[in-house]
Amino acid sequence: MLGKTYEAMAKVCSAARALEVVGERWSLLIIRDALYADATRFSDFRRLGIATNILKARLDGFVEAGIMERRPSPGKPESFHYVLTDKGRDLAPVIATLTEWGDRWEAPDGPPLLYVHSTCGGAVRQQTACENCGPVPDPEEIQTHPGPGLPADAVL
Amino acid sequence: MLGKTYEAMAKVCSAARALEVVGERWSLLIIRDALYADATRFSDFRRLGIATNILKARLDGFVEAGIMERRPSPGKPESFHYVLTDKGRDLAPVIATLTEWGDRWEAPDGPPLLYVHSTCGGAVRQQTACENCGPVPDPEEIQTHPGPGLPADAVL
Repeated sequence: MLGKTYEAMAKVCSAARALEVVGERWSLLIIRDALYADATRFSDFRRLGIATNILKARLDGFVEAGIMERRPSPGKPESFHYVLTDKGRDLAPVIATLTEWGDRWEAPDGPPLLYVHSTCGGAVRQQTACENCGPVPDPEEIQTHPGPGLPADAVL
Repeated sequence: MLGKTYEAMAKVCSAARALEVVGERWSLLIIRDALYADATRFSDFRRLGIATNILKARLDGFVEAGIMERRPSPGKPESFHYVLTDKGRDLAPVIATLTEWGDRWEAPDGPPLLYVHSTCGGAVRQQTACENCGPVPDPEEIQTHPGPGLPADAVL
Protein backbone atom coordinates (compact mmCIF):
# COMPACT_ATOMS: atom_id res chain seq x y z
CA MET A 1 0.00 0.00 0.00
CA LEU A 2 2.66 2.46 1.03
CA GLY A 3 4.73 1.80 -2.07
CA LYS A 4 1.81 2.45 -4.35
CA THR A 5 0.73 5.69 -2.84
CA TYR A 6 4.21 7.22 -2.57
CA GLU A 7 5.17 5.99 -6.04
CA ALA A 8 5.02 9.27 -7.94
CA MET A 9 7.00 11.08 -5.25
CA ALA A 10 9.58 8.32 -4.93
CA LYS A 11 10.67 8.90 -8.54
CA VAL A 12 12.03 12.30 -7.69
CA CYS A 13 12.68 12.15 -3.96
CA SER A 14 14.97 9.93 -1.94
CA ALA A 15 13.19 10.95 1.26
CA ALA A 16 10.02 9.37 -0.13
CA ARG A 17 12.02 6.26 -1.04
CA ALA A 18 13.35 6.09 2.51
CA LEU A 19 9.85 6.52 3.95
CA GLU A 20 8.64 3.64 1.78
CA VAL A 21 11.10 1.46 3.72
CA VAL A 22 10.98 2.93 7.23
CA GLY A 23 7.97 5.30 7.22
CA GLU A 24 5.39 2.95 8.64
CA ARG A 25 4.27 3.13 12.23
CA TRP A 26 6.84 1.74 14.71
CA SER A 27 9.54 1.17 12.10
CA LEU A 28 11.98 3.80 13.33
CA LEU A 29 11.40 2.95 17.00
CA ILE A 30 12.18 -0.70 16.27
CA ILE A 31 15.39 0.38 14.55
CA ARG A 32 16.21 2.69 17.45
CA ASP A 33 15.97 -0.23 19.87
CA ALA A 34 18.17 -2.33 17.60
CA LEU A 35 20.74 0.48 17.50
CA TYR A 36 20.76 1.68 21.09
CA ALA A 37 19.00 -0.91 23.31
CA ASP A 38 20.79 -4.04 22.01
CA ALA A 39 17.45 -5.52 20.91
CA THR A 40 17.85 -8.49 18.58
CA ARG A 41 15.20 -11.04 19.59
CA PHE A 42 11.49 -10.79 18.83
CA SER A 43 10.86 -10.64 22.57
CA ASP A 44 13.35 -7.76 22.99
CA PHE A 45 11.32 -5.59 20.63
CA ARG A 46 8.08 -6.39 22.48
CA ARG A 47 9.14 -3.84 25.14
CA LEU A 48 7.98 -1.15 22.71
CA GLY A 49 4.41 -2.24 23.45
CA ILE A 50 3.80 -3.15 19.82
CA ALA A 51 1.29 -5.81 18.75
CA THR A 52 2.97 -9.08 17.74
CA ASN A 53 1.43 -9.21 14.26
CA ILE A 54 2.66 -5.70 13.48
CA LEU A 55 6.10 -6.40 14.93
CA LYS A 56 6.37 -9.54 12.81
CA ALA A 57 5.35 -7.62 9.69
CA ARG A 58 7.93 -4.91 10.37
CA LEU A 59 10.80 -7.33 11.05
CA ASP A 60 9.94 -9.40 7.97
CA GLY A 61 9.82 -6.19 5.94
CA PHE A 62 13.21 -5.08 7.26
CA VAL A 63 14.75 -8.45 6.30
CA GLU A 64 13.22 -8.15 2.82
CA ALA A 65 14.50 -4.59 2.45
CA GLY A 66 18.02 -5.58 3.53
CA ILE A 67 17.92 -3.50 6.72
CA MET A 68 18.14 -6.54 9.00
CA GLU A 69 19.40 -10.09 8.74
CA ARG A 70 17.56 -12.97 10.37
CA ARG A 71 20.03 -15.35 12.01
CA PRO A 72 19.28 -18.58 13.91
CA SER A 73 20.00 -18.21 17.62
CA PRO A 74 23.02 -20.22 18.75
CA GLY A 75 21.83 -23.61 20.06
CA LYS A 76 18.19 -22.75 19.30
CA PRO A 77 17.75 -23.16 15.56
CA GLU A 78 14.01 -22.58 15.82
CA SER A 79 14.44 -19.07 17.21
CA PHE A 80 16.01 -16.07 15.52
CA HIS A 81 18.00 -12.92 16.06
CA TYR A 82 17.35 -9.85 13.97
CA VAL A 83 20.60 -8.00 13.36
CA LEU A 84 20.96 -4.64 11.61
CA THR A 85 22.96 -4.63 8.39
CA ASP A 86 25.16 -1.69 7.32
CA LYS A 87 22.09 -0.35 5.52
CA GLY A 88 20.10 -0.55 8.75
CA ARG A 89 22.82 0.94 10.97
CA ASP A 90 23.07 3.80 8.50
CA LEU A 91 19.64 4.97 9.73
CA ALA A 92 21.28 6.24 12.93
CA PRO A 93 21.40 9.86 11.64
CA VAL A 94 17.64 9.75 10.94
CA ILE A 95 16.98 8.69 14.53
CA ALA A 96 19.43 11.34 15.74
CA THR A 97 17.77 14.23 13.89
CA LEU A 98 14.34 13.15 15.13
CA THR A 99 15.72 12.95 18.67
CA GLU A 100 17.30 16.39 18.49
CA TRP A 101 14.11 17.93 17.13
CA GLY A 102 12.13 16.29 19.96
CA ASP A 103 14.70 17.54 22.48
CA ARG A 104 14.38 21.11 21.19
CA TRP A 105 10.62 21.31 20.73
CA GLU A 106 8.88 18.59 22.74
CA ALA A 107 10.98 18.34 25.90
CA PRO A 108 9.96 21.18 28.26
CA ASP A 109 11.91 19.56 31.13
CA GLY A 110 15.03 19.07 29.03
CA PRO A 111 16.22 16.07 27.01
CA PRO A 112 15.35 12.69 28.56
CA LEU A 113 18.59 11.26 27.18
CA LEU A 114 21.90 12.88 26.31
CA TYR A 115 24.02 11.61 23.42
CA VAL A 116 27.71 11.91 24.18
CA HIS A 117 30.97 10.98 22.52
CA SER A 118 32.29 7.92 24.35
CA THR A 119 35.95 8.86 23.94
CA CYS A 120 35.75 12.45 25.32
CA GLY A 121 32.28 12.95 26.86
CA GLY A 122 31.40 15.83 24.51
CA ALA A 123 27.81 16.38 23.36
CA VAL A 124 27.13 14.84 19.95
CA ARG A 125 24.99 16.75 17.45
CA GLN A 126 23.84 16.44 13.87
CA GLN A 127 24.94 19.33 11.72
CA THR A 128 24.47 20.36 8.13
CA ALA A 129 27.80 20.94 6.43
CA CYS A 130 29.02 22.07 3.01
CA GLU A 131 31.99 20.14 1.65
CA ASN A 132 33.72 23.47 0.96
CA CYS A 133 32.57 25.81 3.73
CA GLY A 134 31.86 23.59 6.75
CA PRO A 135 28.69 24.04 8.83
CA VAL A 136 25.65 25.57 7.06
CA PRO A 137 23.27 26.65 9.82
CA ASP A 138 20.74 28.38 7.53
CA PRO A 139 18.51 26.03 5.48
CA GLU A 140 17.77 28.95 3.15
CA GLU A 141 21.30 28.53 1.80
CA ILE A 142 20.51 25.06 0.45
CA GLN A 143 19.28 24.56 -3.13
CA THR A 144 18.25 21.42 -5.02
CA HIS A 145 19.55 20.59 -8.50
CA PRO A 146 18.58 17.68 -10.78
CA GLY A 147 20.82 14.68 -10.08
CA PRO A 148 21.94 11.69 -12.19
CA GLY A 149 19.07 9.54 -10.94
CA LEU A 150 16.29 11.94 -11.92
CA PRO A 151 14.01 10.18 -14.45
CA ALA A 152 13.69 12.00 -17.78
CA ASP A 153 9.89 12.18 -17.38
CA ALA A 154 9.98 13.42 -13.80
CA VAL A 155 7.76 16.35 -12.89
CA LEU A 156 9.42 18.53 -10.27
CA MET B 1 -4.26 6.86 18.50
CA LEU B 2 -0.60 7.47 17.80
CA GLY B 3 -0.13 9.38 21.03
CA LYS B 4 -1.59 6.59 23.09
CA THR B 5 0.42 3.78 21.65
CA TYR B 6 3.79 5.59 21.72
CA GLU B 7 3.12 6.98 25.19
CA ALA B 8 5.46 4.76 27.21
CA MET B 9 8.31 5.29 24.77
CA ALA B 10 7.76 9.03 24.56
CA LYS B 11 8.59 9.39 28.25
CA VAL B 12 12.18 8.39 27.65
CA CYS B 13 12.76 9.11 23.97
CA SER B 14 12.59 12.36 22.08
CA ALA B 15 12.56 10.46 18.78
CA ALA B 16 9.24 8.90 19.86
CA ARG B 17 7.96 12.37 20.79
CA ALA B 18 8.94 13.66 17.36
CA LEU B 19 7.24 10.70 15.67
CA GLU B 20 4.07 11.45 17.61
CA VAL B 21 4.02 14.81 15.79
CA VAL B 22 5.37 13.94 12.34
CA GLY B 23 5.38 10.12 12.19
CA GLU B 24 2.07 9.60 10.49
CA ARG B 25 1.81 8.76 6.82
CA TRP B 26 2.50 11.72 4.51
CA SER B 27 3.51 14.08 7.31
CA LEU B 28 7.18 14.42 6.39
CA LEU B 29 6.45 14.64 2.66
CA ILE B 30 4.00 17.49 3.31
CA ILE B 31 6.69 19.26 5.31
CA ARG B 32 9.24 18.58 2.59
CA ASP B 33 6.99 20.30 0.03
CA ALA B 34 6.52 23.24 2.40
CA LEU B 35 10.31 23.50 2.81
CA TYR B 36 11.54 22.91 -0.72
CA ALA B 37 8.61 23.22 -3.17
CA ASP B 38 7.15 26.51 -1.87
CA ALA B 39 3.86 24.78 -1.09
CA THR B 40 1.57 26.85 1.14
CA ARG B 41 -1.98 26.38 -0.17
CA PHE B 42 -4.12 23.30 0.30
CA SER B 43 -4.09 22.85 -3.49
CA ASP B 44 -0.26 23.04 -3.57
CA PHE B 45 -0.01 20.02 -1.31
CA ARG B 46 -2.47 18.04 -3.45
CA ARG B 47 0.41 17.40 -5.91
CA LEU B 48 1.59 14.72 -3.48
CA GLY B 49 -1.40 12.64 -4.56
CA ILE B 50 -2.79 12.59 -1.03
CA ALA B 51 -6.51 12.21 -0.27
CA THR B 52 -8.13 15.52 0.74
CA ASN B 53 -9.45 14.26 4.08
CA ILE B 54 -6.00 13.01 5.09
CA LEU B 55 -4.32 16.21 3.91
CA LYS B 56 -6.79 18.28 5.90
CA ALA B 57 -6.18 16.16 9.02
CA ARG B 58 -2.39 16.52 8.65
CA LEU B 59 -2.46 20.30 8.11
CA ASP B 60 -4.88 20.79 11.02
CA GLY B 61 -2.59 18.63 13.17
CA PHE B 62 0.47 20.66 12.18
CA VAL B 63 -1.29 23.90 13.13
CA GLU B 64 -2.30 22.39 16.46
CA ALA B 65 1.27 21.18 17.09
CA GLY B 66 2.75 24.60 16.25
CA ILE B 67 4.57 23.35 13.15
CA MET B 68 2.51 25.49 10.77
CA GLU B 69 0.49 28.68 10.99
CA ARG B 70 -2.78 29.09 9.10
CA ARG B 71 -2.99 32.56 7.57
CA PRO B 72 -5.83 34.03 5.50
CA SER B 73 -4.79 34.51 1.86
CA PRO B 74 -4.44 38.19 0.90
CA GLY B 75 -7.71 39.39 -0.66
CA LYS B 76 -9.32 35.98 -0.15
CA PRO B 77 -10.22 35.74 3.52
CA GLU B 78 -12.07 32.46 2.98
CA SER B 79 -8.91 30.67 1.79
CA PHE B 80 -5.73 29.99 3.73
CA HIS B 81 -2.00 29.61 3.48
CA TYR B 82 -0.17 27.11 5.63
CA VAL B 83 3.23 28.48 6.58
CA LEU B 84 5.94 26.64 8.49
CA THR B 85 6.91 28.07 11.86
CA ASP B 86 10.47 27.92 13.21
CA LYS B 87 9.50 24.62 14.81
CA GLY B 88 8.39 23.31 11.43
CA ARG B 89 11.42 24.61 9.50
CA ASP B 90 13.61 22.92 12.08
CA LEU B 91 12.51 19.57 10.64
CA ALA B 92 14.78 20.19 7.63
CA PRO B 93 17.59 17.99 9.08
CA VAL B 94 15.13 15.09 9.46
CA ILE B 95 14.18 15.37 5.77
CA ALA B 96 17.86 15.69 4.88
CA THR B 97 18.96 12.54 6.70
CA LEU B 98 16.10 10.54 5.16
CA THR B 99 17.07 11.89 1.73
CA GLU B 100 20.73 11.00 2.17
CA TRP B 101 19.87 7.50 3.32
CA GLY B 102 17.60 7.06 0.27
CA ASP B 103 20.36 8.40 -1.97
CA ARG B 104 22.85 5.89 -0.57
CA TRP B 105 20.66 2.81 -0.41
CA GLU B 106 17.61 3.21 -2.65
CA ALA B 107 18.96 5.13 -5.65
CA PRO B 108 20.77 2.66 -7.97
CA ASP B 109 20.91 5.30 -10.74
CA GLY B 110 22.28 7.97 -8.41
CA PRO B 111 20.51 10.68 -6.42
CA PRO B 112 17.45 12.14 -8.16
CA LEU B 113 18.20 15.51 -6.59
CA LEU B 114 21.43 17.08 -5.38
CA TYR B 115 21.51 19.41 -2.38
CA VAL B 116 24.06 22.16 -2.85
CA HIS B 117 25.22 25.22 -0.95
CA SER B 118 23.78 28.21 -2.79
CA THR B 119 26.73 30.49 -2.06
CA CYS B 120 29.53 28.17 -3.30
CA GLY B 121 27.92 25.21 -5.11
CA GLY B 122 29.43 22.65 -2.72
CA ALA B 123 27.58 19.45 -1.84
CA VAL B 124 25.68 19.72 1.44
CA ARG B 125 25.65 16.75 3.81
CA GLN B 126 24.43 15.91 7.28
CA GLN B 127 27.20 14.91 9.63
CA THR B 128 27.43 13.76 13.22
CA ALA B 129 29.79 15.95 15.21
CA CYS B 130 31.14 16.07 18.74
CA GLU B 131 31.35 19.54 20.27
CA ASN B 132 34.96 18.83 21.21
CA CYS B 133 36.33 16.58 18.47
CA GLY B 134 34.39 17.51 15.33
CA PRO B 135 32.95 14.82 13.01
CA VAL B 136 32.15 11.42 14.58
CA PRO B 137 31.76 9.00 11.69
CA ASP B 138 31.37 5.85 13.83
CA PRO B 139 27.98 5.47 15.61
CA GLU B 140 29.65 2.98 17.97
CA GLU B 141 31.38 5.97 19.60
CA ILE B 142 28.05 7.44 20.75
CA GLN B 143 26.61 6.65 24.19
CA THR B 144 23.37 7.71 25.87
CA HIS B 145 23.24 9.09 29.41
CA PRO B 146 20.18 10.06 31.49
CA GLY B 147 19.25 13.71 30.83
CA PRO B 148 17.42 16.34 32.91
CA GLY B 149 14.05 15.47 31.34
CA LEU B 150 14.16 11.77 32.19
CA PRO B 151 11.18 10.97 34.47
CA ALA B 152 12.16 9.46 37.82
CA ASP B 153 9.98 6.41 37.12
CA ALA B 154 11.30 5.84 33.61
CA VAL B 155 12.31 2.32 32.65
CA LEU B 156 15.25 2.38 30.24
